[in-house]
Amino acid sequence: MRVEGAWRRAIEPAAGGAVIVLDQTALPHRTAWLRLATLDDAARAIRDMWIRGAPLIGATAAYGVALAVRADARPEALARACEQLAATRPTAINLRWALDEMTAALAPLPPGARGDAALALAARISDDEVTRCEAIGRHGLALIEAAAARAGDRPVRVLTHCNAGWLATVDWGTALAPIYRAHEAGIPVEVWVDETRPRNQGLLTAWELAQHGVPHTLIADNAGGHLMQRGLVDLCIVGTDRTTRGGDVCNKIGTYLKALAARDNGVPFYVAAPSPSIDWTIEAGADVPIEERSGDEVRRVAGRGPGGEPAAIELVPAATAVANPAFDTTPRHLVTALVTERGVCAASAEGLAALFPERAAPKAPETAPETAPERR
Amino acid sequence: MRVEGAWRRAIEPAAGGAVIVLDQTALPHRTAWLRLATLDDAARAIRDMWIRGAPLIGATAAYGVALAVRADARPEALARACEQLAATRPTAINLRWALDEMTAALAPLPPGARGDAALALAARISDDEVTRCEAIGRHGLALIEAAAARAGDRPVRVLTHCNAGWLATVDWGTALAPIYRAHEAGIPVEVWVDETRPRNQGLLTAWELAQHGVPHTLIADNAGGHLMQRGLVDLCIVGTDRTTRGGDVCNKIGTYLKALAARDNGVPFYVAAPSPSIDWTIEAGADVPIEERSGDEVRRVAGRGPGGEPAAIELVPAATAVANPAFDTTPRHLVTALVTERGVCAASAEGLAALFPERAAPKAPETAPETAPERR
Repeated sequence: MRVEGAWRRAIEPAAGGAVIVLDQTALPHRTAWLRLATLDDAARAIRDMWIRGAPLIGATAAYGVALAVRADARPEALARACEQLAATRPTAINLRWALDEMTAALAPLPPGARGDAALALAARISDDEVTRCEAIGRHGLALIEAAAARAGDRPVRVLTHCNAGWLATVDWGTALAPIYRAHEAGIPVEVWVDETRPRNQGLLTAWELAQHGVPHTLIADNAGGHLMQRGLVDLCIVGTDRTTRGGDVCNKIGTYLKALAARDNGVPFYVAAPSPSIDWTIEAGADVPIEERSGDEVRRVAGRGPGGEPAAIELVPAATAVANPAFDTTPRHLVTALVTERGVCAASAEGLAALFPERAAPKAPETAPETAPERR
Repeated sequence: MRVEGAWRRAIEPAAGGAVIVLDQTALPHRTAWLRLATLDDAARAIRDMWIRGAPLIGATAAYGVALAVRADARPEALARACEQLAATRPTAINLRWALDEMTAALAPLPPGARGDAALALAARISDDEVTRCEAIGRHGLALIEAAAARAGDRPVRVLTHCNAGWLATVDWGTALAPIYRAHEAGIPVEVWVDETRPRNQGLLTAWELAQHGVPHTLIADNAGGHLMQRGLVDLCIVGTDRTTRGGDVCNKIGTYLKALAARDNGVPFYVAAPSPSIDWTIEAGADVPIEERSGDEVRRVAGRGPGGEPAAIELVPAATAVANPAFDTTPRHLVTALVTERGVCAASAEGLAALFPERAAPKAPETAPETAPERR
């Protein structure tokens, strides 16, 4: 999307096989691009959160492997690179997936061919993310168009939580892709941006939207319900960290509260769910483990000091007990629809199975087998 | 309640007719008492928010009048003092009420008797707040006792939003009064404290509870729904800025979201409502005007810098549009019960009228009058 007037991606190829990434730790106060020229650079970018968002982490890791392999094409170097990258953010699913993809494709090749192949594959992984997000944007556009028809002369007012934009996904984003599409199509859209304590990812969303020229208003996380009560929200759309096969949505903490308010006020609540975020092994959201993160994320806030310099303050003494669950689960009955790269579907096992029949596990046989199957 | 081991009030008489107040701008990082010895001191304490909370503002204003009258007992001085104090926080209802009370009582007295009478009346206004809060604590205790019986061996887990504690009300508090009562009675209680963005009044609640020894855990406002989903909240209790005669509750922004989550998870949701907070002139919460406050409250956060000094940071550039509604309305059907100084009642016109028959307006006659009444 646009940054300072030019269309950019969150990770871009540069001369000599290097890549450049937008330094997300400097946002929203400063726009800085960082050059990643070595495996160590890529590993540090992920570990120190210069970049974030599962799809972007995957793409960056893939480029990290490519940088490693171009420097040293021996098999042990490939393995070492994957090991180093895997250790940067141990829980990111896309990271592991990208490393497995790279290893599977590169290992069979003669060392001399690995460098170029690795770079090409990393570019493809990056492009695939963009293609998926573009499709979500296309399918989600229809939902915004419908809201625009209901809104009449005034802009469509969309509420979103956290950052599910192009900063997290190379380009377009998931939840923000339909908003960008609508904006490009000339539909007037205004976005309510939840601050998203404790890590304040809403500030990234506000920055993205400002750079692309989409009107938006930042709000405290507490405000969304009131705005819906007063008829100031036409639809909500959020991303998802994990969607169960049954249609329950695990997303940034606080998503559930907005879904409750949306239902209470008759506001559609959509979830942009690219297929890699669907967990086909889990049926119920209650079974998704919720990450408990450091209380320091609540105790301390980062921003800009009086001189414009990066600064952080402490809200409460370190002795204050803090709980910091990072995600919550929105039950399927609060989700109006899922928006995937294959189309819009009900948040249900049937809805997802209809769009992804090859991934939905076959049903158990109607009658019990005569002898119990062996346990493996 | 307890501060550094001693039982204190948020405003206390001192030598020479002065009062001392706890400097709430320094909390939670530093405990400092400020001496208010003149009318100007009292006005500044209210205007610059050294003290806050409607009941405490009323008590401080009453002492401000007393300080003025002791310095100058002439009628014009009394009027000027009320004018100056009324201008400090123009929207605080208790402030106006306290000034009216003082004026009505003092104006008929001979100048020589005014000083002592003013001090005595200010003390009574302050004591009346405490008496009301003590009663709310007593009535609310029964609700916590019931939850404790259900909880069995483990502590009762209470979630609260904003600060409805003794810092806002001279002593005991409204929502926190039952919690303090339960703690004093030996019932193990643990409190989930909502941070309460944007002004972070939850930090005051955490400080209060810590000083009094009540176990508590600070959480981001986004976290409460998840905690209720996981069965980690036994009851919610909050304060109210205005309760309509019909039982709708206007309180700090974000209260409504917690009430929705409570209902969705079968968690009782109580509102501590002292009678001065009941607006007998309004039936429906939708008719309560909601104050829109400066966006800077969202843009900037105050705390403590790396050296322990007071510090503030900017989260987003000043150009970022921000909306900052300060309150929201929780409809009566989401409120399990109101806890008033006269007892616990349903959040309904009938419930309130049963406890406050003298305040609930008489019902309209069942049959229409033969001639329409004149419009006045």
